[in-house]
Amino acid sequence: MRIARFESAGLARYGVVEGDGVVEIRGDVFGTFERTSTSHALSDVRLLAPATPTQMFGPGVNFADHLHGAAGITGQSEMAPTPQPWHKAVSAIINPGDTIQIPYDSTTGIQHEGECLAVIGQVTRRVSPDEAWNRVLGYTCGNDISERTWQRNDNSMWRGKGSDTFAPIGPWIDTEFDPRSGGDMIVRLNDEEVQRASTADMHFNFGQLISYISQQMTLRPGDIVWSGTTGEPRNMKPGDQVEVEVQGIGILSNPVAMEPR
Amino acid sequence: MRIARFESAGLARYGVVEGDGVVEIRGDVFGTFERTSTSHALSDVRLLAPATPTQMFGPGVNFADHLHGAAGITGQSEMAPTPQPWHKAVSAIINPGDTIQIPYDSTTGIQHEGECLAVIGQVTRRVSPDEAWNRVLGYTCGNDISERTWQRNDNSMWRGKGSDTFAPIGPWIDTEFDPRSGGDMIVRLNDEEVQRASTADMHFNFGQLISYISQQMTLRPGDIVWSGTTGEPRNMKPGDQVEVEVQGIGILSNPVAMEPR
Repeated sequence: MRIARFESAGLARYGVVEGDGVVEIRGDVFGTFERTSTSHALSDVRLLAPATPTQMFGPGVNFADHLHGAAGITGQSEMAPTPQPWHKAVSAIINPGDTIQIPYDSTTGIQHEGECLAVIGQVTRRVSPDEAWNRVLGYTCGNDISERTWQRNDNSMWRGKGSDTFAPIGPWIDTEFDPRSGGDMIVRLNDEEVQRASTADMHFNFGQLISYISQQMTLRPGDIVWSGTTGEPRNMKPGDQVEVEVQGIGILSNPVAMEPR
Repeated sequence: MRIARFESAGLARYGVVEGDGVVEIRGDVFGTFERTSTSHALSDVRLLAPATPTQMFGPGVNFADHLHGAAGITGQSEMAPTPQPWHKAVSAIINPGDTIQIPYDSTTGIQHEGECLAVIGQVTRRVSPDEAWNRVLGYTCGNDISERTWQRNDNSMWRGKGSDTFAPIGPWIDTEFDPRSGGDMIVRLNDEEVQRASTADMHFNFGQLISYISQQMTLRPGDIVWSGTTGEPRNMKPGDQVEVEVQGIGILSNPVAMEPR
């Protein structure tokens, strides 16, 4: 099942994607709900980021082949023995199709990081890695936009990965996708493929990441854990179009512009 | 004026503190509101953390006399040329009187950090330091509970300062307090004074902190910026009672216990 959040008649609603339409639901996507008789063509609605997390976490470097690129930014030269969670700012979330803005005071511009995102479905605290999988509602796509100078020089990721518009998320939550069997995470920049890796190659898988975070922190329905990224992301410039596809989930596409002064 | 959030008949409500009572309000504490004719004795209600932030930020080391203690944790030996914001987990928030829990898997226990907190009153983005002061609804007290081993060894503050119960906040928001003229921030551990510093001695004041964060990130009503702490905080043990007073605002008091397994 694919759960979308969308805007219709000025209101944010949840629905179930079926073919090229979305059926409105009644109830709670994190609890019980039922389909209503109201549906819309997908082309008639504006898709929104499919969750409204209270918090989001990145995992630290989580793909071996991102180490080389990461070493130049963080100095990290080997995989950490545990996840290294950090807060990805919820204020940075934007919707599918929304514009990613390069801050006008950025000195080095911004890069894409195409990722798979786990959306927590239940209150989760001190669960085992095995149990953690059961606490996930489903998976979506995200773009962990990064300003490398701020990421390198600041003591935290607050703006290097948390500036406004740095968290495009969507297009919907797929409840059947299984990152263990793997789906390729692909980034296309102006239709050119620039990143590809399988969720099956995550160093710490989502079960391990969620379990680890939950030892100290209560995760809530809608909270999001990011997969980490792969390879060596590229710079983006105004006018670019960047697309994150997780095969089996869908495609998240956003234009890039310079922030107006 | 003092704005409290409290529980009455199972519901969270906002009210205005007057003498030893609290008068319920109708409307939006961040917009316009009016007093109702319903009031309660403060002794009859349970005070709640007075804001429900979407995000909270610490400033990095922000008192010169905290550098010595901080150097042993972070290696930082002089004040940074800019604020160094970091996310303080909103999942860590607890109410006045709630129990601070020492995680049973903490190896070094936890310490107090008594601070003054600015509660944002309006949507705030790219404001000057002068304008930032106008975006504050008021100030409250907070205890930036810290587990030093995690703070030292992790790449972020996610659990070192973000574990569940690590953010006691309260007792209310004082809209007339002015941190520029200074109020002493005092911590008492089992009635012994263990920290004291004036908000007037913040290295970066709240106007500067809020302005700096707002350059890259939209702050929202209820969001919180912490002052940073002073001196050399002490370890706390089960059975302790820790009190943060900001003179002119009020007293936040919480017991300490070992997290049950």
